Amino acid sequence: MTPLFSIGIGIGTQNANGEWLEVYYPQPLLNPSEAIAQAVIGASGYAEGNQTLDLDAKAIAALGEALSQAGEAALAATVTSLTNSTRRAVVVILATDASPSSVPEAYLKLQLISHRLVRPHGIDLSGIFGCLPNVAWTSEGAIDLAELSARQLKARLENRALSVDSIDKFPKMTDYVVPSGVRIADTSRVRLGAYIGEGTTIMHEGFVNFNAGAEGPNMIEGRISAGVFVGAGSDLGGSSSTMGTLSGGGNIIISVGKECLIGANAGIGIPLGDRCIVEAGLYITSGTKVGLLDDNRQAVGSAKARDLAGRSDLLFRRNSETGAVECLTNKTAVELNEALHAHN
Amino acid sequence: MTPLFSIGIGIGTQNANGEWLEVYYPQPLLNPSEAIAQAVIGASGYAEGNQTLDLDAKAIAALGEALSQAGEAALAATVTSLTNSTRRAVVVILATDASPSSVPEAYLKLQLISHRLVRPHGIDLSGIFGCLPNVAWTSEGAIDLAELSARQLKARLENRALSVDSIDKFPKMTDYVVPSGVRIADTSRVRLGAYIGEGTTIMHEGFVNFNAGAEGPNMIEGRISAGVFVGAGSDLGGSSSTMGTLSGGGNIIISVGKECLIGANAGIGIPLGDRCIVEAGLYITSGTKVGLLDDNRQAVGSAKARDLAGRSDLLFRRNSETGAVECLTNKTAVELNEALHAHN
Amino acid sequence: MTPLFSIGIGIGTQNANGEWLEVYYPQPLLNPSEAIAQAVIGASGYAEGNQTLDLDAKAIAALGEALSQAGEAALAATVTSLTNSTRRAVVVILATDASPSSVPEAYLKLQLISHRLVRPHGIDLSGIFGCLPNVAWTSEGAIDLAELSARQLKARLENRALSVDSIDKFPKMTDYVVPSGVRIADTSRVRLGAYIGEGTTIMHEGFVNFNAGAEGPNMIEGRISAGVFVGAGSDLGGSSSTMGTLSGGGNIIISVGKECLIGANAGIGIPLGDRCIVEAGLYITSGTKVGLLDDNRQAVGSAKARDLAGRSDLLFRRNSETGAVECLTNKTAVELNEALHAHN
Repeated sequence: MTPLFSIGIGIGTQNANGEWLEVYYPQPLLNPSEAIAQAVIGASGYAEGNQTLDLDAKAIAALGEALSQAGEAALAATVTSLTNSTRRAVVVILATDASPSSVPEAYLKLQLISHRLVRPHGIDLSGIFGCLPNVAWTSEGAIDLAELSARQLKARLENRALSVDSIDKFPKMTDYVVPSGVRIADTSRVRLGAYIGEGTTIMHEGFVNFNAGAEGPNMIEGRISAGVFVGAGSDLGGSSSTMGTLSGGGNIIISVGKECLIGANAGIGIPLGDRCIVEAGLYITSGTKVGLLDDNRQAVGSAKARDLAGRSDLLFRRNSETGAVECLTNKTAVELNEALHAHN
Repeated sequence: MTPLFSIGIGIGTQNANGEWLEVYYPQPLLNPSEAIAQAVIGASGYAEGNQTLDLDAKAIAALGEALSQAGEAALAATVTSLTNSTRRAVVVILATDASPSSVPEAYLKLQLISHRLVRPHGIDLSGIFGCLPNVAWTSEGAIDLAELSARQLKARLENRALSVDSIDKFPKMTDYVVPSGVRIADTSRVRLGAYIGEGTTIMHEGFVNFNAGAEGPNMIEGRISAGVFVGAGSDLGGSSSTMGTLSGGGNIIISVGKECLIGANAGIGIPLGDRCIVEAGLYITSGTKVGLLDDNRQAVGSAKARDLAGRSDLLFRRNSETGAVECLTNKTAVELNEALHAHN
Repeated sequence: MTPLFSIGIGIGTQNANGEWLEVYYPQPLLNPSEAIAQAVIGASGYAEGNQTLDLDAKAIAALGEALSQAGEAALAATVTSLTNSTRRAVVVILATDASPSSVPEAYLKLQLISHRLVRPHGIDLSGIFGCLPNVAWTSEGAIDLAELSARQLKARLENRALSVDSIDKFPKMTDYVVPSGVRIADTSRVRLGAYIGEGTTIMHEGFVNFNAGAEGPNMIEGRISAGVFVGAGSDLGGSSSTMGTLSGGGNIIISVGKECLIGANAGIGIPLGDRCIVEAGLYITSGTKVGLLDDNRQAVGSAKARDLAGRSDLLFRRNSETGAVECLTNKTAVELNEALHAHN
């Protein structure tokens, strides 16, 4: 058979109408082995394509047994443990990486990224906003917004402090998975679907949207917007900004190369190459006119910032005496002129 | 009788001395009907003016019954449910919109705004800081600061993780009410007393103080300071700033009109009209000198930003070649000159 | 005997291997009295130097009794209460202020600062990063990262919402101590080891790292980085930035004197003296070239910002017409020239 794209076996939360609010997959699988695929297909009644299947306790137990016999002891143990829960279990089998069409599918795809099984832009998330319900994330778990006020009153009457921590389509990543080798000082600022590479620290002011992330190692004290990816060794200073595809960045997908430094309170509306620096407090939008300085710090000409998109070894600053935005390069005047003319 | 201004029937938390720390009103009422007013007055022993009245279980049951007979089934059910709680119940009856004089009154007024029954600046909140106690907001509810350390030790001894989430006079809004049609990614950043209009998203970096808010729909990734109101269709970019009446904005009340865009890391110290744009990274204070450009982008003169307060169709930017702050308008040179002279 | 430097008697959390994750000291002691020292030494088996000692219930009870007989009723009561807990108790005795060499020692030192017994830079914290384990801070307390995913699965199976709030070496301060007279709107932004002086408000956008703080009273809506201290009466505007010794500030220790104002979205890479102002939106790095204006607002010369480090009565702004960074002083041209030449 054609290899499957992904399998997720999880438990989740439903509203009073039996609609899924969220699904947790302890061990999401990308490109599962033939043995696992056969075990899951056999136990779940899967037919074809991308399917979401409910499993009762008996089916879960059978699946755990089948996985055990397939030599997948760890996965088998996890699956078998699901029989101990009153929560509804679900199996998602994705034959292909089609756009998500249900809550369980969408949650599986987000968890594939946060488990680092795929990278941002490495999976089809189109239409995911439409798939995901807006949910109240509370100290008593996910609650449907239509049921929230009754739950809040009930909790008060029963002397419980029901904390409503987020009203959002995306939960915080760390309630689903904490990848190895990271620090995330304030987890409310990293959405499920973020990719946080080994060795990365997200400080309190840092933020990472879904389908975005950092290669690692990185020190992130700024905002990684939806769709943005930051290369190894790059640091984002406190409150620094990267324009996202959802919010003003338009069609340009912003990225940051390796070993860059975006200063505190700075920002970028263009992708950066490697070893670039943006001075603290300076915001470079794609339309910013930038004076170019050669390797002797002599003015050579000017360019729109968008024409410098993706280039390496640039230092952006605002001249503190003239107020002009400048870009220091490590190129000679001749090289820079050639590069400028290449755009004409 | 003269119509009442507001009625709140709630339960709350008191400290060891029986002083109120906070009160939760499931259904605060603005301008209650005569029938409701009569039922509440009859059951509570209200005499006149603005009063806060304790209700025992018997009085609550009677009030529920009276409201039921007045045809107010939903409110009656909510009130009757309060008899099931060990928490102390309270009724606040406000004949007039006088400044709040007690914790229950202050909490009622804040909840009227967050329930969207009144808008920011639509109710008298003068002196509210003096009314409100500073409270520890914890995973075990509101705790008086004088009692906190003993509670913390007790929880540790009993192997409970008592989380102290905020030390503030204002709790987070969403523990009291989540208005319809909103997303609030990190609810710790929206104080009770905020007004969050239908269709509004407050992203992780967004913030809304009390007596402030957004008309909706809006995308808010910046800070709406105390007293600031943002019109329909306007977006606040990440970490953008609006000067508040409590913090540097002085006597000018800042507001943002309709369909404005304040860029990421930008800020305003003047109110904006409609369809204004402030470029990412630019902070306009009231004293900023701004060069004015006409509809042909020709320089016409200059003005202090405060003289442009409240005007529509302005685009503020810092010229990236000269460092000068400029304001692009859609007016002719003649129209601009007339406008400038109007200030002389 | 030589007086001891510090004593901590606490309870904490260990991982499955019996290694400390964190320790809570209800009443950390700096320079304890001879009577207390003798009681603790007698009950704990302390020999010499800096030691961490486990205490069983019997030893704790004896210690409580000894402290009671030494006339330390409050401390005795706290210590005696520890016998009621299943958590492991620990005593740390520091003869000297040597760099921390264990988790209990590091936690004691951080709590000494947050209890305001010592100020930032007033205690040896060298090597503390190496001492502290990275921990998952959850709604069920501190959890070892190696044990987290199993705990998360278990909680889901048992229908509990285990919230993973932070993955960090430092917990939030308020779960250990809330010093008197402060407001901290979002406690996730103040690390244990912060010093928050009496009368200080940390608003939602404020942040305070360990070994850093504010003298009080202060209004803090910006970021106090590691090692930074802010003097009495100074305000940090929303999202304002102070460069930390850990992140770009290099060897210069940043501080802010008394009665300064750093505007919203502004930042400093130099220490400020007293009564300085940095305009909203302006970032001063140590290399910024600054035009100097005398007390008549006449240009006198220019300087690197680092040459103005620590000086008082300066106002930094970016001229909105020329884009040049300027520093307004209250000095005459003659005085300024003398000051400039002093650097040559």
